Amino acid sequence: MFDNKENTGLDKLGEFGLIDLINKSIEIKEESTVKGIGDDAAVIQHGGKQTLISTDLLLEGVHFDLRYVPLKHLGYKAVQVNLSDIYAMNGIATQITFSIGLSSKFPLEAVEELYAGAILACKKYNVDLVGGDTSASKQGLVISVTSIGYADSSAVTYRNGAEEGDLICVSGDLGGAYVGLQLLEREKQIFLENPNIQPDLEGKDYIVERQLKPEARRDVVQLLKELQIKPTSMIDVSDGLASEVLHLCKQSSKGCRLYEEKIPIDQMTYDTAREFGLDPTVCALSGGEDYELLFTIKQSDYEKIKGDLDISVIGYIMEENAGCNLISKSGNLYPITAQGWNAFN
Amino acid sequence: MFDNKENTGLDKLGEFGLIDLINKSIEIKEESTVKGIGDDAAVIQHGGKQTLISTDLLLEGVHFDLRYVPLKHLGYKAVQVNLSDIYAMNGIATQITFSIGLSSKFPLEAVEELYAGAILACKKYNVDLVGGDTSASKQGLVISVTSIGYADSSAVTYRNGAEEGDLICVSGDLGGAYVGLQLLEREKQIFLENPNIQPDLEGKDYIVERQLKPEARRDVVQLLKELQIKPTSMIDVSDGLASEVLHLCKQSSKGCRLYEEKIPIDQMTYDTAREFGLDPTVCALSGGEDYELLFTIKQSDYEKIKGDLDISVIGYIMEENAGCNLISKSGNLYPITAQGWNAFN
Repeated sequence: MFDNKENTGLDKLGEFGLIDLINKSIEIKEESTVKGIGDDAAVIQHGGKQTLISTDLLLEGVHFDLRYVPLKHLGYKAVQVNLSDIYAMNGIATQITFSIGLSSKFPLEAVEELYAGAILACKKYNVDLVGGDTSASKQGLVISVTSIGYADSSAVTYRNGAEEGDLICVSGDLGGAYVGLQLLEREKQIFLENPNIQPDLEGKDYIVERQLKPEARRDVVQLLKELQIKPTSMIDVSDGLASEVLHLCKQSSKGCRLYEEKIPIDQMTYDTAREFGLDPTVCALSGGEDYELLFTIKQSDYEKIKGDLDISVIGYIMEENAGCNLISKSGNLYPITAQGWNAFN
Repeated sequence: MFDNKENTGLDKLGEFGLIDLINKSIEIKEESTVKGIGDDAAVIQHGGKQTLISTDLLLEGVHFDLRYVPLKHLGYKAVQVNLSDIYAMNGIATQITFSIGLSSKFPLEAVEELYAGAILACKKYNVDLVGGDTSASKQGLVISVTSIGYADSSAVTYRNGAEEGDLICVSGDLGGAYVGLQLLEREKQIFLENPNIQPDLEGKDYIVERQLKPEARRDVVQLLKELQIKPTSMIDVSDGLASEVLHLCKQSSKGCRLYEEKIPIDQMTYDTAREFGLDPTVCALSGGEDYELLFTIKQSDYEKIKGDLDISVIGYIMEENAGCNLISKSGNLYPITAQGWNAFN
């Protein structure tokens, strides 16, 4: 993957050299950043707002496969995944810390690519990179991101506020990231069997990007503010719609009903799922990594949101004993199960 | 190390089961914690104070060796190391996030030990554990800790505020953690060569604890407040005195002079270093992991601090062109070099 002859060994640069180099490519622009990289801790001041904080750990071989994930995309995605958690609280992200552990097999240029992606995501979302840790790793690449944001205390949206009769909404479309992953996995297998065959991803840009370069939905938080809608509960779709809606229902002590026909699935996602012999609805329910926002609103807010093409109303909240069910296109009722994701299998 | 017959496989529990289990052992006590584990992000409110944030990544085989580090100590130390950065800003730590990546070779009981250590450290230092991420790892154990704290904006102490004539002070004693590590490494080698020989650490508790179970110096922050001393600069000793004093001087654009005879070294550290054929002063300068606080104060504050047995005045700040030098016990002058630590060698 890397041409070592032309690259710079990290062993020559050392940790402090690497930090200096990273620091030079970072600008501080967020007003609440009092102090960024270069001291024992970053200093942030959010006045009377509530501070939000979220953290993710991404490990090579578990969360990403460097055989088809470009490092710049990986840096970009690592930031997006984390910002998405702040938006899922109805907050605005303002800072991140970005830590990496990497083995000496990675040349400096690889680290620069990774940070270039992270910094691009920060710029695009008006977020300051204010700290982190760089470390040697005996094994693969390790990335840890923590994001910090704020919200008025009256705006912060938890998972536990859904009420009976509330409408269940989701932004964008679902299942694309999972189908994109299947495509990348197939091309990887073909490449491993015959390295002369070039990957065939033509015309599949949308779903490949959904997997490699997701965009956190800050715009949805802004839209809700403009429409003067305070969601009653909210979560981001990282593990799949089924798992997320069950989180909202469990934490709110409620049940729900979803309509299969209302679940937004992009046409390319649908067609490609079919090519792979997959049920597109299952991809949306269990695929994950779409980083859309799933939220509930009061029925009285429906008029404000119904014209927005980017928000789909996919069901409603019921009392707890009703359970969590999906009404299929054929009109049958199926219990929603937490296929979720068991990292230890 | 683990008896798998009696232990619980993590694969049976799953990620959500593991989070539930961790959550049950955590109490929220810090007033500024609005919301802890269980949503997309923790919510923290620090009023008009400045929020401090610091993060560390700890990787198996680089930062710790599970052949002699008990998991409970590791969890404890991972938290201490991170809190130390908040204290080094002259702030009070209030929350942490604690993330782990671990392979399925670890039974549930191992994870519980790790968290038990982390939670013990939180309790002892009045810090809330408010979030984190748990993940599978293909290889070794990965720990990522982020700590959050606060301080009045007038109290926050950066690395760059040292002025010519300021006194250089350090808390506690130095070099012990490094000498403790040498001891543990020696016993590991003996054990690897002959597993029937029991480790001989008798009477060496102090230096072994300095390595395995360091204590971040929150008490020094409190002491400085009581004495009404605002340090002009401060850093924690993680990489060794030499590296840290050079950080203060570089960021303050100053030089310094340290006196070898003033560097606080515990008697057991001194004697054990000698046993290993090591120069105790070099252990203090380059050993690292002591997690003491190194800070500078105005000369006018000397009277307030001189009676405190736990604080040593070890030198003073000079103008930049004077360079950074150590006066040896024999009266010679040696330039201080950043032996620091090059993680990629």
